[in-house]
Amino acid sequence: MSVKMRIGKGSVTTPRGFRAGAVACGIKKNGKNDLALIVSEREAAAGGVFTTNYFAAAPVKLTRKNIRAGKLHAVIINSGNANACTGKKGEQNARKMMFWAAEFLGVSPNNIAVCSTGVIGSQLPIKKIEKGLRSLRLSGTGGSLAAQAIMTTDTFKKEGAVRFNLGRIKASLGGIAKGAGMIQPNMATMIAAITTDAAVAPKLLQIALASAANETFNNITVDGCESTNDTVIILANGLAGNKRIVKQDKQYRAFLHALKLLCKKLARDIVRDGEGATKLLNVTVKRASSALAARAFCRAVANSNLVKTAIYGKDPNWGRIVAALGAEKYPIKAQKVDIYFDNCRIVRKGVEVPSSQGKAAKILAKKEISLNIVINAGSHSHTVWSCDLTHDYITINASYRS
Amino acid sequence: MSVKMRIGKGSVTTPRGFRAGAVACGIKKNGKNDLALIVSEREAAAGGVFTTNYFAAAPVKLTRKNIRAGKLHAVIINSGNANACTGKKGEQNARKMMFWAAEFLGVSPNNIAVCSTGVIGSQLPIKKIEKGLRSLRLSGTGGSLAAQAIMTTDTFKKEGAVRFNLGRIKASLGGIAKGAGMIQPNMATMIAAITTDAAVAPKLLQIALASAANETFNNITVDGCESTNDTVIILANGLAGNKRIVKQDKQYRAFLHALKLLCKKLARDIVRDGEGATKLLNVTVKRASSALAARAFCRAVANSNLVKTAIYGKDPNWGRIVAALGAEKYPIKAQKVDIYFDNCRIVRKGVEVPSSQGKAAKILAKKEISLNIVINAGSHSHTVWSCDLTHDYITINASYRS
Repeated sequence: MSVKMRIGKGSVTTPRGFRAGAVACGIKKNGKNDLALIVSEREAAAGGVFTTNYFAAAPVKLTRKNIRAGKLHAVIINSGNANACTGKKGEQNARKMMFWAAEFLGVSPNNIAVCSTGVIGSQLPIKKIEKGLRSLRLSGTGGSLAAQAIMTTDTFKKEGAVRFNLGRIKASLGGIAKGAGMIQPNMATMIAAITTDAAVAPKLLQIALASAANETFNNITVDGCESTNDTVIILANGLAGNKRIVKQDKQYRAFLHALKLLCKKLARDIVRDGEGATKLLNVTVKRASSALAARAFCRAVANSNLVKTAIYGKDPNWGRIVAALGAEKYPIKAQKVDIYFDNCRIVRKGVEVPSSQGKAAKILAKKEISLNIVINAGSHSHTVWSCDLTHDYITINASYRS
Repeated sequence: MSVKMRIGKGSVTTPRGFRAGAVACGIKKNGKNDLALIVSEREAAAGGVFTTNYFAAAPVKLTRKNIRAGKLHAVIINSGNANACTGKKGEQNARKMMFWAAEFLGVSPNNIAVCSTGVIGSQLPIKKIEKGLRSLRLSGTGGSLAAQAIMTTDTFKKEGAVRFNLGRIKASLGGIAKGAGMIQPNMATMIAAITTDAAVAPKLLQIALASAANETFNNITVDGCESTNDTVIILANGLAGNKRIVKQDKQYRAFLHALKLLCKKLARDIVRDGEGATKLLNVTVKRASSALAARAFCRAVANSNLVKTAIYGKDPNWGRIVAALGAEKYPIKAQKVDIYFDNCRIVRKGVEVPSSQGKAAKILAKKEISLNIVINAGSHSHTVWSCDLTHDYITINASYRS
């Protein structure tokens, strides 16, 4: 893009014509908000990407179906319970959420996206949702409330907005997301809702979302575990007034660029707030022989418990990095590999650079670290965002339901 | 086998004609023994299985070459340093270990297997090994000393023996092994040395070892990380006096059965002593549509950080089990899956069995737990041995080199 776009403050209610709200139904034991509703004042073009898990939750199946027509009016999301592996009753409960939201808003049930996140295998306390929904209030500044209500083990809310131009028309994108465990790069690996006032044809909206998710949400990992509920929904209500984007032209590219910026921000926030995480780790593989090899090497390093604990311990133990690389099925020549922590080279042609350890240890004390692995076998690069593996991850996940 | 064989007490010096010893060279900072030597009094038939990691360590490459002729006289193993990713100098150092051991024993250098285990990427303190070797004493009861000297983060030594009959001849197998991190089911995932006084042709010895390793060492996981140094060596010196086993007959099957018993014992000990582990987890998948699917499902569950932390927290959070199963590429039908903790069914046809949680939580308080997953899609089964993921795993691996 010639024009520099920036991620800015804002949320799903930043684009024109969107309202949101949240309420505490009592699904979360701590009494915090656990039900969010995001609504477009008029029917919006819609797209969605979903988990590829065979145990996809009831709301995922329902929303996948509703979104096929390419339009939505609202997204209802509860936290505290994933409504996954809940059988027929779970499917009925997801449909109840859909009907109630439609009734509450006076729109068609088929235009509602339903999302749930939280514990797997327990039935939704559906009466609480029915009651809670009645006292939910929507507002044009309610995006942050919604961002907060969808949190589970997240420690901070994830939201952002991008303002961009479509010709002379000013448009914007806003989004919210939640992590923070069961995060693995495979399709969209969390729940996110994105809104825009740009007018975009549903087909192109879907293409743009899939492309943006593929470069952002699909390249994050906290623990290599893919959830049953991963969903990213986008609503485009056209209130910016631009000529509807119907082909992959300059306007589409501007929109896509803005969307990728927003998704990248939300994706990196999810990793930064990974369960127990103290550090954000940018793992980049360069000069691999193929795109698939670059991605596989990235994921191997980004998912290695041994690499992640070493980073936590601020120990530049690069042996664990090469062990992870070498265990992949793609051939790799030890004597050609260089490894950098930020700009500090610690491995040159497969062996340790003398006296690099001290400098590397200093880099590892930072909150965000880039791990650059140069394979020297081709021209393909890839980046995956990961975090460290800490005592708090264990604490959180050994007592998640208690 | 019609005859019941049992794993018993013993070590690599239990079979006739083997001696072993260990010494503290000063590679380990804590002053414990770190160099072990296992010797057959006469040239033995030999087999070996090795890591498939592309960054295979210098001693792995050397031993892989030496073992090609199917015979060995001795195995030298140091702990505290893996001699991996150490370039040309590392290769020279592995060869030095080989030559010194050969000189010390008065045998051919090509008949020496060299193994190293410990930190990756640092050069071996080779002078210490030369000096240490001179003061090493071999004995017919030194097997346990060797088992102790090869430990790294292991908390107990792994050894065992099996007595078995070959016709009227009494023979035996003995073995030692070490774990305890960077353990993943892919080829032999640790270091083990096995001795036998049975007479077995090298080709059959290799087939038997590969088969036994495939069913045992290849089905263990601590952290899903495959090491650069994994090696299992077997020496068969024939001193039992049996007619040499040269084909896959009854005698071969008796030998193979004994070997599998021993390997299974050592493999399970490695997992039981996985870094930070408090529980041994037998993950069995039954009635899968193919052997590959059964194995993939087992590994997915056995390697899931979320499952492993739930087990640590004694939380029967089966949602994490199905999330791990459903993320695999093999199709699986939620409504057909049953899950048991030991004999307690907690999931029936994809949904929770009412009031099973309390009983399951009690089972999870035990030291060893069987997780049985019935897919109901075919006739294939598989078992993988895993352990829980604990605070101590993080502590050990965040400070491994400090």
